[in-house]
Amino acid sequence: MRALFFDGQVILRDDCPRPEPRPTEALVKVVRAGICRTDLEITKGYMGFKGVMGHEFVGVVEKCHNRQWINRRVVSEINISCGECIFCRSNLSNHCPSRSVIGLKDRDGCFAEYIALPINNLHLVPDSVSDEEATFIEPVAACFEVLEQVHIHPKNNTVVLGAGKLGLLMAQVMKLHGNDVTIVAKHPEKLETAQQLGLKAYPASEVRERSKNVIDCTGTPEGFDLAQRLVIPRGRIILKSTFTAKAPIDPASIVVNEIEVVGSRCGPFRPAVNALQRKLVDIQPLISGRYPLSRGLKALDQAAESSSLKILLTMEE
Amino acid sequence: MRALFFDGQVILRDDCPRPEPRPTEALVKVVRAGICRTDLEITKGYMGFKGVMGHEFVGVVEKCHNRQWINRRVVSEINISCGECIFCRSNLSNHCPSRSVIGLKDRDGCFAEYIALPINNLHLVPDSVSDEEATFIEPVAACFEVLEQVHIHPKNNTVVLGAGKLGLLMAQVMKLHGNDVTIVAKHPEKLETAQQLGLKAYPASEVRERSKNVIDCTGTPEGFDLAQRLVIPRGRIILKSTFTAKAPIDPASIVVNEIEVVGSRCGPFRPAVNALQRKLVDIQPLISGRYPLSRGLKALDQAAESSSLKILLTMEE
Repeated sequence: MRALFFDGQVILRDDCPRPEPRPTEALVKVVRAGICRTDLEITKGYMGFKGVMGHEFVGVVEKCHNRQWINRRVVSEINISCGECIFCRSNLSNHCPSRSVIGLKDRDGCFAEYIALPINNLHLVPDSVSDEEATFIEPVAACFEVLEQVHIHPKNNTVVLGAGKLGLLMAQVMKLHGNDVTIVAKHPEKLETAQQLGLKAYPASEVRERSKNVIDCTGTPEGFDLAQRLVIPRGRIILKSTFTAKAPIDPASIVVNEIEVVGSRCGPFRPAVNALQRKLVDIQPLISGRYPLSRGLKALDQAAESSSLKILLTMEE
Repeated sequence: MRALFFDGQVILRDDCPRPEPRPTEALVKVVRAGICRTDLEITKGYMGFKGVMGHEFVGVVEKCHNRQWINRRVVSEINISCGECIFCRSNLSNHCPSRSVIGLKDRDGCFAEYIALPINNLHLVPDSVSDEEATFIEPVAACFEVLEQVHIHPKNNTVVLGAGKLGLLMAQVMKLHGNDVTIVAKHPEKLETAQQLGLKAYPASEVRERSKNVIDCTGTPEGFDLAQRLVIPRGRIILKSTFTAKAPIDPASIVVNEIEVVGSRCGPFRPAVNALQRKLVDIQPLISGRYPLSRGLKALDQAAESSSLKILLTMEE
């Protein structure tokens, strides 16, 4: 089968073996996939990953021992856990130390015609959620993870740093609480997209007051520095982006202002499906381009451009 | 009056004017004071402070409009706030942006024969708390601040990094919860002091498992790095020390493991007074030396030695 493969460099391969599902797994024919910033980090060596790239997708089950799944449209949680360790037994299976992660760690991803996945990881996609919306379930779930971890009070204000694809989803999810959400970003076109989505959006120079919550979705080491400048004493900085660089922090400022810093990764799929089904999160303005898998290399190039938002891959030519 | 004064260098002065209390203030004759690591940072330029040093002390009120305070033994909260801003009105007066801090920011400290302080900042010291115990009220309060900020579950384990004076107090306060507390430190003598206090204490090389809570009391940039290695996924790193150096963090590890980092500073005096009154915190093994104020320079030198714990200053010769 065809797949986008990373092995020190990205290769479009036509000779990848179609995965053979185990008895507890389903074979899913991928319909659409989304390129995430983390995929671009993978191409720079993040996680030391080798294999088929990609972790955001929607597909249709083609083979499965449990025949109820056949022909159903599905998305999949990306962490494949052991089910037995203390984390798995504590409802924290995303932190299972022996987990694999599709397209990121020890497991092939979804930039391919087929992917095999544990049935336990699958979620049905309601008919009222389009294929394109469904590719956003995984990143929207990552936004809901913030609400799993910390209590965002409706009356507190929140700043989202970065108007990239994650920032624009995060701001929409935070706004569901009714609290005052502002996007702070550099790129004028992206600020405009934020405003089209009904979000307040400014460059950092125009921010006049500090916020209780600052969510860094910049994907850059500079984001943390800006977050420290925009958060109030006793406020909270939430880090959402993974990147390989180190960031220098000023521990005295964290201590003196009693700042809370929270790292946040993958999240719960159900609220993401619900929000997309109810059209509470608008993904259409976030799509910058669509490419067939055969043009996957070009798609990755476009995804890496600073003006790009989400690039989707279509598996059927 | 005599005082230890910092003005780019530490000077023992005999010509400092005795402070004149305002109508809302009391004049306190200092009895004993303690040297904190932050005082040593001040001598390296931390906070850009100039003036009489010191913020840990016990004294006796000598002058006050409200005569009920006269001759009473007192300690004082160190942040002097405006009482009117949003932080002061939200029970977060320690974060008042226009605050002064005795011996640290825009206000003379307690390494002197006298100090003038707002009556609102004073706490009576019960007779059953000795002068030496009373000088520890401020740092013990800083330990209780952690319990103000986060929920430490009794069944979770906690590691305290550093067996200096703050680490040894912190471990004792954390242990009040009944949870499993381990001190991790380098210095063999200090590890022994920890063990004398009934605390588990090891060098980092002997730690076999990660902890839910890691409290960094090392006062060094390396502490944060060690904390990241000793904390479990979804665990919490609490930063207690203020120092001027920057520390490099690996944001990806904070994000992937969903670590919470909490800066923590000054704390509530009442639980500290209560704990010392009930002898739940033992301060005697923490005292490394006692000096009269006239030998204050020598006292600071000894406080800076790596083997030293708390050095006390006695104001009467």
